[in-house]
Amino acid sequence: MHQTTVRVAEGALDANQTIAESNRADFDAAGVTVVNLMSAPGAGKTTLLERALEDTGDVRVGVLEGDVRGSLDADRLSHLHVPVTQINTDPAFGGECHLDANMVRSAIPEVPLEEIELLVIENVGNLVCPAEFRVGEDARWMISSVTEGEDKPLKYPLMFRTCELVVINKVDLLPHLDFDLDRFLANLDQVNPDVETLRLSARTGEGTDAWRERLLSLAAG
Amino acid sequence: MHQTTVRVAEGALDANQTIAESNRADFDAAGVTVVNLMSAPGAGKTTLLERALEDTGDVRVGVLEGDVRGSLDADRLSHLHVPVTQINTDPAFGGECHLDANMVRSAIPEVPLEEIELLVIENVGNLVCPAEFRVGEDARWMISSVTEGEDKPLKYPLMFRTCELVVINKVDLLPHLDFDLDRFLANLDQVNPDVETLRLSARTGEGTDAWRERLLSLAAG
Repeated sequence: MHQTTVRVAEGALDANQTIAESNRADFDAAGVTVVNLMSAPGAGKTTLLERALEDTGDVRVGVLEGDVRGSLDADRLSHLHVPVTQINTDPAFGGECHLDANMVRSAIPEVPLEEIELLVIENVGNLVCPAEFRVGEDARWMISSVTEGEDKPLKYPLMFRTCELVVINKVDLLPHLDFDLDRFLANLDQVNPDVETLRLSARTGEGTDAWRERLLSLAAG
Repeated sequence: MHQTTVRVAEGALDANQTIAESNRADFDAAGVTVVNLMSAPGAGKTTLLERALEDTGDVRVGVLEGDVRGSLDADRLSHLHVPVTQINTDPAFGGECHLDANMVRSAIPEVPLEEIELLVIENVGNLVCPAEFRVGEDARWMISSVTEGEDKPLKYPLMFRTCELVVINKVDLLPHLDFDLDRFLANLDQVNPDVETLRLSARTGEGTDAWRERLLSLAAG
């Protein structure tokens, strides 16, 4: 039984990789850079996207929203002048806890790739499985909010290791928390030395200009 | 291919139910009440356990800690006079994002059931899959922190629906957030009408006496 289970799991991973490469080819053909944005639930992915997409200058951005159910996040972005596509993972049993390459592939026909040069994929809020499934992205970024505690890089090492940028959100709350930023950075350094970080508050706007610039700069890459 | 995948998933769920019932029988035979404690990463499960287990009166409590990797949470509880058993989900591919009945079953020999009357299972921090896998528990409780936003019951309905108690943590931060508690409660009511709630702050201690009493009262049930 165990061997059968493992074999199925490996097969699923291989299929994911195959489909991710097809996605990658489609994105390349359209000249679209793709970032896979991940975090725990409530870390601020959507609020940060709102901040960034208020003014995208001459960069044409699209968003692919992954949620277990509903379109709350897509609705929040609907007042911005960017095309937003929703994927729900709910039809799978119980609601999948992550996006995989095939879910993204199924959504590609709904994404106006010819009209954009940067696609932001907002993954399901989860620090485990999203890190395990590449979807054809160029960059993997995550958001970690200071309310989650300093230990998260050690408890979810694959997520923190797989990302090239860790955005540290909700720094406006630091005076009201016991969070030790130096300890968080030391824990992060243990699993992903020299990873790029940004510190900001999506709520107050502190640091969000640098975030917008960093996100839009992906389009040039 | 799709049909094969679905069939395997259903088989896995059935096996989980079968094993959960075996766990349930073992817990019943030992006279142990079991609560499955779930939340997003960083919502405060371990801190709330520390608060509750500082003084358990004459109730004999044990803890089963589920983590992807490491024993940070178990270490945090080690100064308390309760037996703590650690399960790591890491050996499975990539690190499982939840506890299932078989993982709990594999840990039961390490849990001193004869010495306790209440077992708290701290699940992996995740709002999706833990809700899908019963492990033989009597009660399912979750912790939702106000820093996560009001929309979480609508985005993760299965988790909020499956629990009999929702603990609303970090209320000390309310003055510093845009969180609308009434809207959160209305969203919660949509998915789980009349669910029991507790409001508290694990950090300041506000409301944690009621939390401790509620937790320990399970042992009498």
